Amino acid sequence: MTDKPVTACVLVIGNEILSGRTQDANLSFLGRRLNEIGIRLTEARVIPDIEPVIVETLNEVRARFDYVFTTGGIGPTHDDITAGCVAKAFGHPLTLNPEARARLEAHYPPGQLNEARLRMAHTPEGARLIDNPVSTAPGFQVENVFVMAGIPAIMQAMFEGIVHRLVGGKPLLSRSLTIAIGEGNIAQDLGRLQDTYPDVEMGSYPFNRQGNIGTRLVLRATEPARLDAAARELDGIVKALGGAGEWDPDPSKPGGAA
Amino acid sequence: MTDKPVTACVLVIGNEILSGRTQDANLSFLGRRLNEIGIRLTEARVIPDIEPVIVETLNEVRARFDYVFTTGGIGPTHDDITAGCVAKAFGHPLTLNPEARARLEAHYPPGQLNEARLRMAHTPEGARLIDNPVSTAPGFQVENVFVMAGIPAIMQAMFEGIVHRLVGGKPLLSRSLTIAIGEGNIAQDLGRLQDTYPDVEMGSYPFNRQGNIGTRLVLRATEPARLDAAARELDGIVKALGGAGEWDPDPSKPGGAA
Repeated sequence: MTDKPVTACVLVIGNEILSGRTQDANLSFLGRRLNEIGIRLTEARVIPDIEPVIVETLNEVRARFDYVFTTGGIGPTHDDITAGCVAKAFGHPLTLNPEARARLEAHYPPGQLNEARLRMAHTPEGARLIDNPVSTAPGFQVENVFVMAGIPAIMQAMFEGIVHRLVGGKPLLSRSLTIAIGEGNIAQDLGRLQDTYPDVEMGSYPFNRQGNIGTRLVLRATEPARLDAAARELDGIVKALGGAGEWDPDPSKPGGAA
Repeated sequence: MTDKPVTACVLVIGNEILSGRTQDANLSFLGRRLNEIGIRLTEARVIPDIEPVIVETLNEVRARFDYVFTTGGIGPTHDDITAGCVAKAFGHPLTLNPEARARLEAHYPPGQLNEARLRMAHTPEGARLIDNPVSTAPGFQVENVFVMAGIPAIMQAMFEGIVHRLVGGKPLLSRSLTIAIGEGNIAQDLGRLQDTYPDVEMGSYPFNRQGNIGTRLVLRATEPARLDAAARELDGIVKALGGAGEWDPDPSKPGGAA
């Protein structure tokens, strides 16, 4: 663990997300899991299957964030161009990875490992493989860039296999409170509380559930004592406004759990 | 309608999406609806509630894309900073918009339009309002930037109210075919078909439904005749591979429908 904040960017690669045809399901998983290990997802981008866009974006974000995770575009078809783009971004040749090839050879019945599927054994030279316990074809890591599949079940399995390679900072802890008060009625007090606790991030999310208006308030901080102190004050504010707040059941769990 | 391709970028603004606490639901709606009116969602970014990040990102993408749509951060609390950031990005002062104020005054019971809620009547000077038929507090437009709420029901209502302000190109039409063939087995033929039809975008999306492996193939083009021709050839390829394909029922619908 490091004392500095550790940042990450996710690149979701794929026309099908931008067309609205497929709903991305990877971002929320990665945001939550990264937070649990002390890495903050600081930005995410959804970009199309267009080589210069992927190369340029990758070079921008890998310089700007501690870690970059890509999802999508590593299958056997012509529209799977992520590996080639990563190679180009790093200026490494894209070559047949012997270990990846061996895994695919062991996986497919004789005659099934055709030219298209062999595309999935190509990585930028020197890349470190990421295991795929679901369907074998591996992802890979080059420096701070982790290239994973787009299918959620595979991406999640790949991620769990690389967690030990990641060095996080202090996890953001969170507590969240649901109140039957419109956010406009608590906004001023909340703003003042935020000023008092600049090290506790305070978010306010209004909802309307079948006509029942309310607000979910989320406090996040790395220091448990500061989080508790802010939560106690917030509780007092809600009571003074005549409201009853309901805290999420497990305040000790990291950020995304509530 | 214009003959040129028309592009858009969506900025999803909010820590709660990056923490994984909230699953974004606006991107797929906007991708689909924009496509229906001939505007192509070319990139999306999820960014945190941090002023310099929002300002810098906004200035980058509003220069690069024909339209920019933002979601989130226009409520009454201290973490709702989108309006101020848009003002800063354009170099306009953030001022109380009289029309927005009048709408809020008509909406809230006497005494309820407090200072916090009046924040929602502030826009960059000269902004054009975007109606909010759900909860009154308006969004706004400055040049090619449309600022909308984050709550999906409100965002969708706002979007339908601005559709007439948008000028699209030719909508991307699409047809999609589901086959019980692994994508590695059709990849080579599909790649060749893509080479023959550079004006038809061909996507391949593998799935594994309870052990049934298959592929969804999506063809997208602006010219119906080219789309039909590519679809006929693809149908032939699938039959030659001994597979049976199932086309989506309504091929005449625009891109995101299938």
